[in-house]
Amino acid sequence: MDIKMIDVKNEILSTNDDLAEELRSRLKAHHVFMVNIMASPGAGKTTLLLDTIRRLKDRFRIAVIEGDIESMVDAEKIADSGAKAVQIRTGGDCHLDAPMLKPAIDSLDLDNVDILFVENIGNLVCPAEFDTGAMLKVMLLSVPEGDDKALKYPLMFSVCDGLLVTKTDCAPLFDFDMERLRKRAHILNPNLHILPVCAKTGENMDEWIRWLEEQRTRCMNA
Amino acid sequence: MDIKMIDVKNEILSTNDDLAEELRSRLKAHHVFMVNIMASPGAGKTTLLLDTIRRLKDRFRIAVIEGDIESMVDAEKIADSGAKAVQIRTGGDCHLDAPMLKPAIDSLDLDNVDILFVENIGNLVCPAEFDTGAMLKVMLLSVPEGDDKALKYPLMFSVCDGLLVTKTDCAPLFDFDMERLRKRAHILNPNLHILPVCAKTGENMDEWIRWLEEQRTRCMNA
Repeated sequence: MDIKMIDVKNEILSTNDDLAEELRSRLKAHHVFMVNIMASPGAGKTTLLLDTIRRLKDRFRIAVIEGDIESMVDAEKIADSGAKAVQIRTGGDCHLDAPMLKPAIDSLDLDNVDILFVENIGNLVCPAEFDTGAMLKVMLLSVPEGDDKALKYPLMFSVCDGLLVTKTDCAPLFDFDMERLRKRAHILNPNLHILPVCAKTGENMDEWIRWLEEQRTRCMNA
Repeated sequence: MDIKMIDVKNEILSTNDDLAEELRSRLKAHHVFMVNIMASPGAGKTTLLLDTIRRLKDRFRIAVIEGDIESMVDAEKIADSGAKAVQIRTGGDCHLDAPMLKPAIDSLDLDNVDILFVENIGNLVCPAEFDTGAMLKVMLLSVPEGDDKALKYPLMFSVCDGLLVTKTDCAPLFDFDMERLRKRAHILNPNLHILPVCAKTGENMDEWIRWLEEQRTRCMNA
């Protein structure tokens, strides 16, 4: 298994946004498309990533930076999928920021990476506040969480480019109204690209991959 | 509707734990049992509270302090249930702490409250770090979130007295192993009281109410 380990202990209180901008420029110079994936605990980030890697790995070289407070169970799954995995263990911190990502990015051979996913800490609040240097921000909201979350966690919906509504296969069990969610989310962020997906049944996974590649082309040519 | 509104703006950086201890003593002097309810977004905190209020309200006078970043949709539901509702709007903060709770507790007529629930911000990370003055800490984990969460968010499992595993009605759709969860949680916290519940089907709701009353008696007599 190909897992590197970086324990974040003393986070330098430098200006996060400046460093994020610097990381973004460096990644772009190496043609690396970095995508920050954010969601509540258990929304399906790892499952989505595993299926996304499976669908992309023949055409792109993929790496994943796994953010966790403790444990490296997700990094182990990612490494098994064939992608490069770098584990950041925050030891308590509730989000990833640019100073935490820098050593993880430093540890990668950027000329051998096309797409770099960041699986952020499971938290619908704090990760929204920190620019990591990613070119694209995607949030997941699972059907069991409910369609009212844009009202309660507005910053996440405001800062993201894409929203994947996951676990659509269990919609029959929940009173989840996709149109109500769309309306609420688009009030906060009219440009948010919303897509209901299900990694288990495959629903709209092709469409997600298509959109992701389109975003990559757009960012790399910008 | 009986809703008071307190917007938290400038949180005083006093020593949280001292203030929490002070609040706990004051509540106890008024025979108020305060319970801090914590979980990820969408784990079912409000639904659980509504059914809990319904089952307790003929015997106890109940108040709920609702913590939200934005919106007051939950406080409106609570007020409709007949309990007193106090809304704390944190305006961005990802958790409740003792300085935020003080004005909310100050606003209540404590001699007319027997049980005071605090519905914390939906976040499995940060709320675990702050003593609010509650006598009992209960976390919810919903079945769709998965049985591996104790590995990834250990502090919450370590600090709580009770763990309610919610949305058990959708267990057939998920690969959720209750025994695996129990083992993982009890390694962190051997005294954690774990109960699978479902507000929708009523599963174990009587047992939850029984345990809650038992804890109240224990705390009030300690």
